Amino acid sequence: MDTLNRLKARLATINDLDSAQALLGWDQHTYMPRGGLEPRVRQMATLQRLSHELLAAPETSELVSALEARLGELEPLDARLVVVTRRDLDQAVRLPGELVQRKSEATGRALDSWMINKPLNNFEAYRPHLEEIFTIVREEADALGYPEQPYDALLNRYEPGLLTSRLQAIFAELGAGLVPLARQLFERAERVDDAFLYQAFDPQAQWDFTVELLGALGYDFNQGRQDKSPHPFTTGFGIPDVRVTTRIHERDFRAGLFGSLHEGGHALYEQNINPAFDRGPLAQGSSLGIHESQSRLWENLVGRSRPFWNRWFGEVKHRFPAPLEGVEFQRFHEAINRVKPSLIRIEADEVTYSLHIFVRFELELELLSGRLAVRDLPEAWNQKMRDTLGITPPTVAEGCMQDMHWADASVGYFPTYALGNLYGVMIFNQARQELPDLDEQISSGQLAPLKDWLTEKVYRHGRSQDPAEILRQATGRELSPQPFLHYVREKYGEIYGLE
Amino acid sequence: MDTLNRLKARLATINDLDSAQALLGWDQHTYMPRGGLEPRVRQMATLQRLSHELLAAPETSELVSALEARLGELEPLDARLVVVTRRDLDQAVRLPGELVQRKSEATGRALDSWMINKPLNNFEAYRPHLEEIFTIVREEADALGYPEQPYDALLNRYEPGLLTSRLQAIFAELGAGLVPLARQLFERAERVDDAFLYQAFDPQAQWDFTVELLGALGYDFNQGRQDKSPHPFTTGFGIPDVRVTTRIHERDFRAGLFGSLHEGGHALYEQNINPAFDRGPLAQGSSLGIHESQSRLWENLVGRSRPFWNRWFGEVKHRFPAPLEGVEFQRFHEAINRVKPSLIRIEADEVTYSLHIFVRFELELELLSGRLAVRDLPEAWNQKMRDTLGITPPTVAEGCMQDMHWADASVGYFPTYALGNLYGVMIFNQARQELPDLDEQISSGQLAPLKDWLTEKVYRHGRSQDPAEILRQATGRELSPQPFLHYVREKYGEIYGLE
Repeated sequence: MDTLNRLKARLATINDLDSAQALLGWDQHTYMPRGGLEPRVRQMATLQRLSHELLAAPETSELVSALEARLGELEPLDARLVVVTRRDLDQAVRLPGELVQRKSEATGRALDSWMINKPLNNFEAYRPHLEEIFTIVREEADALGYPEQPYDALLNRYEPGLLTSRLQAIFAELGAGLVPLARQLFERAERVDDAFLYQAFDPQAQWDFTVELLGALGYDFNQGRQDKSPHPFTTGFGIPDVRVTTRIHERDFRAGLFGSLHEGGHALYEQNINPAFDRGPLAQGSSLGIHESQSRLWENLVGRSRPFWNRWFGEVKHRFPAPLEGVEFQRFHEAINRVKPSLIRIEADEVTYSLHIFVRFELELELLSGRLAVRDLPEAWNQKMRDTLGITPPTVAEGCMQDMHWADASVGYFPTYALGNLYGVMIFNQARQELPDLDEQISSGQLAPLKDWLTEKVYRHGRSQDPAEILRQATGRELSPQPFLHYVREKYGEIYGLE
Repeated sequence: MDTLNRLKARLATINDLDSAQALLGWDQHTYMPRGGLEPRVRQMATLQRLSHELLAAPETSELVSALEARLGELEPLDARLVVVTRRDLDQAVRLPGELVQRKSEATGRALDSWMINKPLNNFEAYRPHLEEIFTIVREEADALGYPEQPYDALLNRYEPGLLTSRLQAIFAELGAGLVPLARQLFERAERVDDAFLYQAFDPQAQWDFTVELLGALGYDFNQGRQDKSPHPFTTGFGIPDVRVTTRIHERDFRAGLFGSLHEGGHALYEQNINPAFDRGPLAQGSSLGIHESQSRLWENLVGRSRPFWNRWFGEVKHRFPAPLEGVEFQRFHEAINRVKPSLIRIEADEVTYSLHIFVRFELELELLSGRLAVRDLPEAWNQKMRDTLGITPPTVAEGCMQDMHWADASVGYFPTYALGNLYGVMIFNQARQELPDLDEQISSGQLAPLKDWLTEKVYRHGRSQDPAEILRQATGRELSPQPFLHYVREKYGEIYGLE
């Protein structure tokens, strides 16, 4: 077992470097003074390079090979550790160190350019950076290799085992149901009035409310904290210390509230991974799609449900008496579930959210293949927004420059958001079957049974199961968009008075 | 020059690891949830190990050797880089990796035990950790080697080039002047009444005042920030991003005010090191003694002076009208300069501060040699406090457990605080000679000329000059306690009405 322990020690060093890098990132987005950016970008690149070198080193491969030769003798979780390490290792070895370093520097520059030029609506200044990113991403796909097409290589980094062709089929089926539903709901837009959500909500009271809700979800503040950042995120530094951020808008009550519930879902996942996985590659979510299923489950399936607001509506009225004066339960519930064509993905409702993802996914495929040039991106984006949602972004800040993900070279990442919606409903339906009192529990503020069920079925397994295994083991089914379509048709059919 | 660039690239990697470790430490003491401690201690130990391995690696030594062979051909600052790297390298190579790792883990445990057991006054629970620390420190001294006695090896890590025997002579001369002066002042204790400093000072107003003062000193908030922590400190992550912390006590106005000025002095030093030194071993203070001279210069020589309060007394009256009602300039100035025998080093005045250091220095020598056993430390501490300051600590929390430094294995460190007092007065006297309007400038709130002079003479040189060189180059003199003694005799003689 000495070989296994040596591998684990090596992986622990890699994990410590990655955790340190995560803390540098957390600080960058929360407390770092602006002048700290330049050294910070270099420090993060150094930690990433050292982590990559340690993983890609021949010694790691030798230890893994020795263990592969007697995989059957290992405990199942140790065997899984070896399999996952081999997968990570193969990817690391295929990426030349030069490319890793170039990518780290290019994303540092591109993110900085994005941050400066997005508010200025200056796509031309940002364009060379985005061109460099897509050049690098193409090189990465070629270096990593793929079963059918280059996009497979990128997608598989976030959603192991899913082919682009299968994803296209799933999205086609999802779109076939969603697009007509969205059209029907848009036509009935006047049925829901959510104007009261955009009045003045006291920022400190909003903050306090998000903290109380995170506690109610079961988020452990002894092993985490919430801070403010322009773009909410969740990050961890070893299993117990998992932190979230949120952003409070005085005149958009949804931002802080649902932002915190969303990140709280991510954080519940990470805080409840089997502690035995700590300091190793299994101490992560199964995939980004599964991760997103949990953020969206808590944000939407719980946080935008009637049972949840049975418990919290009185509280929210009490805390925000002025902006909610005269607002009754039914109107509040409808307002937080209003469906409308919108320009900004992160503000989109449950129905239109996936349509935003389709736009990005299709553009990524075209940009990667070279069928679309970066210079033509703004117009291509606007055309797809017109085709899908019927609206045209007036500026690039509200169009193709709205997200930071491409600047970060995260191509293949967006689809996991839509997959999260699909996984989330399937898993939540199963929880409802196995916990017959679930709605009643949520209505009375008892969220622990749901959290415990999710821990048992999803969270504790970390990355020891692939997404398809998680889903099969939790629900007995294969991924399908139908449960999600059924859920939105039922929920929004009722709110909007459809047949 | 390829060899030089390769060495610089290697040192940059080491520096990035050290900066990341500094951020992990900053977070630990400011925002980290309690549950994050265990993984944090491991992560810091890993970064420290990797940094140590890179420095001690044969490749580093080969690069340095190649450059040493043609030192005369290098630019002076590059030559100095080689010399300093050789010194660090020799130290690193002499310390076995096993000892480094053991020390990192032992200090992690000892610090945790100190934090838990200090408030409980439980020396017995802490004792085994402290014994382990002194065992490790003895091994370190032996591994590092020393010219005359083991303590030299420890002292030289903080104050390069200073022998213990010379330090003892300096301290003897300092004590010969300080002890009788302190006795005289204690006898006239009733002349100064500082009770008003311990009334209720609004914490938020205190915080805001410290922020304004830091800005007035010239601390750059675009390249730093202030946060709260139980023990104030300064830390940097690359030259521009240098952060300070302070602690606000509602009923001790001195804590936040002078804590911020003190840390602000450290931060001014680090923010103004030559940017060309960034990512290398020269991007630090010359020594801890020189570093402390700058914190104490801004805290005491500026911050407790009449000229400084000419500018700020009106402001402090305006911001804290209730607790300062009826307090006139003269009384305020006397109160913030009250001399009294005190139990706690960090609350001590300018005159008695060094006496607290003598206690620690003498005990360190006895503990290191084994003449004193750790188990007998509490009583030995109390005896020395009686001999030096005439008071007996009623608890170990106010006695030998008050500082965290021994838990951190920082033996040889305390003397640099007293040295800082001596360097500080010598440097400040020279500034006064070269800036004839200095008092008038400080009186009108113009602190930039002093900061610029200090930058030119001290800050920008970073670690490119040893402490003795800094002092000689800035003042033309060798270290002596006489200027400090002259300063305190004059200042406190006036306040306390001595001849």
